[in-house]
Amino acid sequence: MMFGWYHRQHNRANLFLCRFLVGCVMMERNTTDSCLRLQTTEPMATALPSNGILTFLTDFSSADGYVGAMKGVALSESTELTLVDIGHEIPAFDIRRAAYTLRMAVPEFPSGTTHVAVIDPGVGTSRKVLVAHVRDQFVVGPDNGLISLLLDWAPDAQVFAVESKHLPDTIRSATFHGRDIFTPIAAKIACGRLDVPGDLKVLPKPIVFDTSFQREKQTITGTVLCADRFGNLITSIPFEELQSAGLSTVHIGQTEITRFVETYGNAEPGAVVALKGSLGLLEISVINGDAAKRLSVTNGTTVRIRL
Amino acid sequence: MMFGWYHRQHNRANLFLCRFLVGCVMMERNTTDSCLRLQTTEPMATALPSNGILTFLTDFSSADGYVGAMKGVALSESTELTLVDIGHEIPAFDIRRAAYTLRMAVPEFPSGTTHVAVIDPGVGTSRKVLVAHVRDQFVVGPDNGLISLLLDWAPDAQVFAVESKHLPDTIRSATFHGRDIFTPIAAKIACGRLDVPGDLKVLPKPIVFDTSFQREKQTITGTVLCADRFGNLITSIPFEELQSAGLSTVHIGQTEITRFVETYGNAEPGAVVALKGSLGLLEISVINGDAAKRLSVTNGTTVRIRL
Amino acid sequence: MMFGWYHRQHNRANLFLCRFLVGCVMMERNTTDSCLRLQTTEPMATALPSNGILTFLTDFSSADGYVGAMKGVALSESTELTLVDIGHEIPAFDIRRAAYTLRMAVPEFPSGTTHVAVIDPGVGTSRKVLVAHVRDQFVVGPDNGLISLLLDWAPDAQVFAVESKHLPDTIRSATFHGRDIFTPIAAKIACGRLDVPGDLKVLPKPIVFDTSFQREKQTITGTVLCADRFGNLITSIPFEELQSAGLSTVHIGQTEITRFVETYGNAEPGAVVALKGSLGLLEISVINGDAAKRLSVTNGTTVRIRL
Repeated sequence: MMFGWYHRQHNRANLFLCRFLVGCVMMERNTTDSCLRLQTTEPMATALPSNGILTFLTDFSSADGYVGAMKGVALSESTELTLVDIGHEIPAFDIRRAAYTLRMAVPEFPSGTTHVAVIDPGVGTSRKVLVAHVRDQFVVGPDNGLISLLLDWAPDAQVFAVESKHLPDTIRSATFHGRDIFTPIAAKIACGRLDVPGDLKVLPKPIVFDTSFQREKQTITGTVLCADRFGNLITSIPFEELQSAGLSTVHIGQTEITRFVETYGNAEPGAVVALKGSLGLLEISVINGDAAKRLSVTNGTTVRIRL
Repeated sequence: MMFGWYHRQHNRANLFLCRFLVGCVMMERNTTDSCLRLQTTEPMATALPSNGILTFLTDFSSADGYVGAMKGVALSESTELTLVDIGHEIPAFDIRRAAYTLRMAVPEFPSGTTHVAVIDPGVGTSRKVLVAHVRDQFVVGPDNGLISLLLDWAPDAQVFAVESKHLPDTIRSATFHGRDIFTPIAAKIACGRLDVPGDLKVLPKPIVFDTSFQREKQTITGTVLCADRFGNLITSIPFEELQSAGLSTVHIGQTEITRFVETYGNAEPGAVVALKGSLGLLEISVINGDAAKRLSVTNGTTVRIRL
Repeated sequence: MMFGWYHRQHNRANLFLCRFLVGCVMMERNTTDSCLRLQTTEPMATALPSNGILTFLTDFSSADGYVGAMKGVALSESTELTLVDIGHEIPAFDIRRAAYTLRMAVPEFPSGTTHVAVIDPGVGTSRKVLVAHVRDQFVVGPDNGLISLLLDWAPDAQVFAVESKHLPDTIRSATFHGRDIFTPIAAKIACGRLDVPGDLKVLPKPIVFDTSFQREKQTITGTVLCADRFGNLITSIPFEELQSAGLSTVHIGQTEITRFVETYGNAEPGAVVALKGSLGLLEISVINGDAAKRLSVTNGTTVRIRL
């Protein structure tokens, strides 16, 4: 019992020494690889050191052991990883909400962070497994639209497909790829034991949902990306589009909104207002209330602004 | 202010040196202890180094400070511990759900991990406090059935009782043993400051709920262990029992299920299906729905399969 | 890729060396500062090393990316910080519940811990930003009553105001100060990069809600501070006040309670009881039930005890 901490440190020291030596060799190999790659059509990712941070986003809730199992798998890859919860209370199967969550959280993390996102209604089917290299971070998850909004933030992102050759011969289950596929891949990346792209092939057309807006002469048209926990409706329309055109009337479902505020505290409880959200997008809110319920609006609803 | 990190490292170095020296002495003592123990009826636990990881599972939710208080107590034992949340949204007092959660999560963690589980409707009464040595990990919690499913996974597990002599003279409260008893014990184990078994006595008959199934000529009979967050019904029947017998009809409550699928994505939304869950147990699911609600089934309901 | 961990450690070593050297200089400067301060009316905080632990408490839920964004900001300040979740499921805008949560959790943490608490209905308005130095820890949050109960625990606490000069010239949003103000300040404190008080000015009258009780000849009068996740009603009346007077009848809303128990397990399910809670305050509970719902009692309700 008394040897635990000592061994941990001791092993850590060995690990680093080992990594350092391997690293020197790898570096040479990588250089060669890069040279080769320059002559192919394969896009080349800048070699990027992992920072050892691995974040988790799921719709598993923390009322079951699914999240715990994923964390155990990650720590079994390396007890030195730093695990961070993004959240586990994404409404079941709500890919839009998860995409908004990733867009909100990922850009704030330091270079070299790895994120694993498991909102996966298609688990066990032929849906693909992707690794996205967004700016200087990595996202591992199912190919189902989860990274739609991240791709708006990082248009140069490279998205790769995990193939069966990257996986163990036997996958333990057909229903829990968070434990059996996504976390093992993500933990290897976070530990620096899996190179991206390495021999991963580009995923030509990752699935995305519509995050666009259109600007015409008299109108700007977009959609409700999702509602957040407070019932705020997050739209696809950048607020600066309205500002440059002069604030006007927002049409959403049966409701017209003409009141613009800078922040929630600037209107009385119950007021329906439009404002610039923390990602710079137009948001519709009910002060101290729930706009999604009050306006009976769902994901994907059209938002139209008359200029 | 500027000295914080330096001191932290400095103390850490001293701690390790101290541990190393103490460890050498301890090792000798342990050897002697083991010899002595071989002549008693007390089972002998292999001395196991802690890895410094401490996980938390409660039904406290994260809408109060109870979980935070437990984490504070652990970090006051050592700021070097790695704290991991398994989950805190277990439905209040739901021991079966917590047992399923531990069974799902614990086996994935690396050797030497300590887990503290506090779903404790009997707090402050005469219910016992246990330390379970399951394979190469530790679980600390109340003796109320929480470890029922872990004991199926680790039949050789040794379960010990914490006695008043292991506790401080004054317990701060009669209503929050998560803070006052379970976490202090678990943190000491995770730090390598409390030996298991050390002088802990075996707990002869830890409380367990029924996790069994029976196979007869024409039928296999088991129970619903619990429903998970998606409403999937987890049964006590290993799926391979059905497979070896040829898949057949599952009777549960008023419902007969004849449709077997490999994964959720293989049937249309709303379908009631049977499948092999991620622990290898028979599960009943409603695709993109909630089987527990749809079938009006509760924990402990009988599941019968006609072969 | 293979260099990540090595660099991390390498940088860490440099960081500590750097801190050590800077620390020596700082120490001298601090000594001088202290001398100067002794001659002013400004209260003097003992210089306190941060322990690198930063905790998070919000009402953001973990169903959005707001918590993740805050954690990313903190880790971008330093990947060496130890992040700890207190909780994120505080009911939206419920300052009393958050105050109770801080009172429950903060005192258990080791010296030098920093806590950031964001329950902030007034985000973007003129409400102030405070840093509280409570005993040997720090709390960063909006000035809206969040620290009311902590100030009862630490009557000598010093509360400081963050002014615009401590903030970047441009605040990214008017609606998410958790990401843009509170976490950056808290992370700097937790890293030892922001001195408290440094040049922070005292906040003369931090906002508090009523946490008092009154003792008269025949009665003790207090209020319901809040209900917890189990529906237990936490009152402002120290239990020892009742004990010294002899237990008697508790009046709360329409209900009279005469049954006192030591712990929940000492009465049958459904019983309404009074007991000493884990903070030493009088609590009203329904065994295995929800006292707040059963008694239709809300925050701030008067509690009266006839002696």
